[in-house]
Amino acid sequence: MKHGGDIVSYQHLYHGPIIDFSSNINPLGYPEILSQVIANGLESLTAYPDIQYRALRQAIAKYLGCQPGEVIVGNGAVEIIDYFCKSYERIVVCIPCFSEYIERTYAHQKKTLKIPLPEDFILRVEVLKAQLNPGDVLMFGNPNNPTGLRIDKEELIRIQQFTEKQGAFLVLDEAFFEFCAEDYDSIRLFYGKENVCVIRAATKFFGLPGIRLGYAYAPPQIISHYNNSILPWRVNAIADLAGRVIFQEKEYIQETKQYVEQQRQFMLSQLRKIAGITVYPTDTNFILLKLWHATEDEIFERLIRQGLLIRKASSFEGLDNTYIRIAIKDQASNIKLIEALRNKNQITF
Amino acid sequence: MKHGGDIVSYQHLYHGPIIDFSSNINPLGYPEILSQVIANGLESLTAYPDIQYRALRQAIAKYLGCQPGEVIVGNGAVEIIDYFCKSYERIVVCIPCFSEYIERTYAHQKKTLKIPLPEDFILRVEVLKAQLNPGDVLMFGNPNNPTGLRIDKEELIRIQQFTEKQGAFLVLDEAFFEFCAEDYDSIRLFYGKENVCVIRAATKFFGLPGIRLGYAYAPPQIISHYNNSILPWRVNAIADLAGRVIFQEKEYIQETKQYVEQQRQFMLSQLRKIAGITVYPTDTNFILLKLWHATEDEIFERLIRQGLLIRKASSFEGLDNTYIRIAIKDQASNIKLIEALRNKNQITF
Repeated sequence: MKHGGDIVSYQHLYHGPIIDFSSNINPLGYPEILSQVIANGLESLTAYPDIQYRALRQAIAKYLGCQPGEVIVGNGAVEIIDYFCKSYERIVVCIPCFSEYIERTYAHQKKTLKIPLPEDFILRVEVLKAQLNPGDVLMFGNPNNPTGLRIDKEELIRIQQFTEKQGAFLVLDEAFFEFCAEDYDSIRLFYGKENVCVIRAATKFFGLPGIRLGYAYAPPQIISHYNNSILPWRVNAIADLAGRVIFQEKEYIQETKQYVEQQRQFMLSQLRKIAGITVYPTDTNFILLKLWHATEDEIFERLIRQGLLIRKASSFEGLDNTYIRIAIKDQASNIKLIEALRNKNQITF
Repeated sequence: MKHGGDIVSYQHLYHGPIIDFSSNINPLGYPEILSQVIANGLESLTAYPDIQYRALRQAIAKYLGCQPGEVIVGNGAVEIIDYFCKSYERIVVCIPCFSEYIERTYAHQKKTLKIPLPEDFILRVEVLKAQLNPGDVLMFGNPNNPTGLRIDKEELIRIQQFTEKQGAFLVLDEAFFEFCAEDYDSIRLFYGKENVCVIRAATKFFGLPGIRLGYAYAPPQIISHYNNSILPWRVNAIADLAGRVIFQEKEYIQETKQYVEQQRQFMLSQLRKIAGITVYPTDTNFILLKLWHATEDEIFERLIRQGLLIRKASSFEGLDNTYIRIAIKDQASNIKLIEALRNKNQITF
C-alpha cells in the first residue's frame, strides 16, 4: 500500500460505505459554491485549458500574496515534486517522508540521500551538516507526512540559510499548510530567495483530491525551466475552473481551520487515554500512532472489517510495521474510530 | 504558436466570440449525457481517483475490443507520447508531424531522427529503409497531423512488419481515429503484436480537449513499465467519470461520423473552387492548405480580425510559412470561413 485513499481495493472486506482515515482530506468537503460553478462551467471542457493558465495563476498569486509570474501549476503537488526529482541529480530527504519523493527520484534514475530523522521526528539543521552538496535538492514536508510535524520557524530559517550557503536548493512540500497554526508563512519568510520553492495544493485542505491541482511559489529560473519542460494542459479545465474560485472562499477556510483544530484536540485527548499506543503530536489533520503490542496488519484487518480504513505506515521508509497513520475526520467518524480502537475485546495492543 | 486552440492569446484582436478553426474538435460538442453525469458525480472529487483506474480501463477495453489489462490511460494522449519519448533512446518521426513528438524528446534529452515525408505527404515503407535501428521507436500520426492523411492498410502492415524485423517499436498516434472511414482498425490489425502501441484519446472525437483523457492499447511489457513509471492519479476524477460513459454513446458516435463526413465533402468542394490555394486530401476533421501567393501570417491576421482563428503551419517542422491548417467545424462556421477565404477584396492569395 504505497498510498492512502485506495478504498476500491478493500471494498470487498466490508459491505457498506467505508470511512477513509487513510487519506488526509478536509472533512467538511470542498467549498459549497464549487458544485454550481462546475455545473455552469462545463462548456470549458470543449476547449483546451489556457496553455499558460493565466487566470488560474492570477487567482493563486492573489491567494499566496505574490505575482502570477512567480506561480507554477501542476497535476497535483506530485507533478511539481516530480519536476525536481527529474531535473536534479540528487534529492536529499529526511525519512520517514512522503513516499513519492523517493519513488519519483527512482523513476527518473536519479540519486537519493535518505537522512533518518531522530526518534522524535523533529528535523534540525544539525542532521544536515556534512550531508548537503552543491546542486542537491533538499526536499521535505512542512508539515511532514506521515509524522504530522511542522518545522519551527527559527529552525526553518537556519535550514534555508544552510542550504543557500551549501549551494543547494530547498523544496518545501506544504500540501497541508492551511491546517497548521498561522505562526508563519514560508512564502513570506523566503520571498525572493533564489533557492527556495514552496509547493502547495488544493488536494487536502480544499477537499479536492479528485481534481488534481497543485501549485508552487518558485524563483524565476525554476518557473521558466518548469514551464518549458512539462506536459502541456496537464491541469484539466475543471481543475482550472475550481482554482479560480476556491481560494476566495474565506469563510470556508476559517470554518475548516476551526473545525479541524477542535477535532484535533478531541482526537489527541481521546487517543492519549488508550493504553498501548504512543500518540505523536501533530500540527495538521492526521496523527501518527505507534503500537506497542500489535502490528499495523492486525489493527488494519480488524478496523477494515468495521468499515474503517486506516493507513499502515511501514510503507514509509524509516518506519517499521508498528506504526499507523489516521486522518482527523468529522466528529461522528472520529468517535467511531476512537471507539473501535478502545474496544479491547476486538483489538489488543 | 506551438499549438492550436490558444484563443486567449488572440482575444484582444476581435471583440466577440472567436470561432476556433485552429484546434480540431468535434463540432457537435461532447455527448449530451455527460453534463448530467458530471453534475451528479461531483462527489467523486472528494476522493482520489482509483489509482489503478480499474472501471475506466474496463470501459475503454470494451470500446476497443480488448482486455482491461491491455489498456493504459494518460493525461491526454500527450502523456502517453511523452512516456515513449522519455523511455527510449531515439524517436524516429516523419515530418511534418505533431510537434510534441519532437518537443517531448527534446525535453527528455533523447535523440530524434526526422525523416521528411515526400511532396504528397504519404508515408511509404521505402522511406524507412536503412533508417531504423534496433531499439528505435517509430512514431507517427495515423491519420497524421497536420497533413490529415491516414496510411493505407496494406502499407501500414508492411511498415509494422519492417519495424518488427528491425527490432524497433511502432507507436501509432490515432487521436483522430474515429473521424476516419471504417476500413480498418489498427488494434485489430496488430492485436497481440509485441512491438506496437496504439494511442487514442477522448480529446478530439468526443469533443473534450478540456478533460485530458488519453488511452492506449499496448503490449504487456509496456503496460507494466508505464504503470510503474508515471505519476499517480494523473487522470482526474471528472475525466475518469467521463471515460466510463462516453464510449457507450453509440448514437452520438454515428451522428458525429456522418456530420463530419458531410462537412468534409462540403469544405473540400468549396475550398477547391478558390483560386490560389492547394487543398490537400484529408481522412479526418481538418484540412491542410498551401497558399500560392500569400504567407500564413497575412491570412492569419486578416481572418483573426473577422473572428476566425486558424492554425499557422510553419511551426510544424518540414512546412514553410505558406501553409495553414483549418478544422472542419459546424456548417455555419464552415460557411463563414469559406466566405472569408473567398473574399478577394480582403484576402489576396
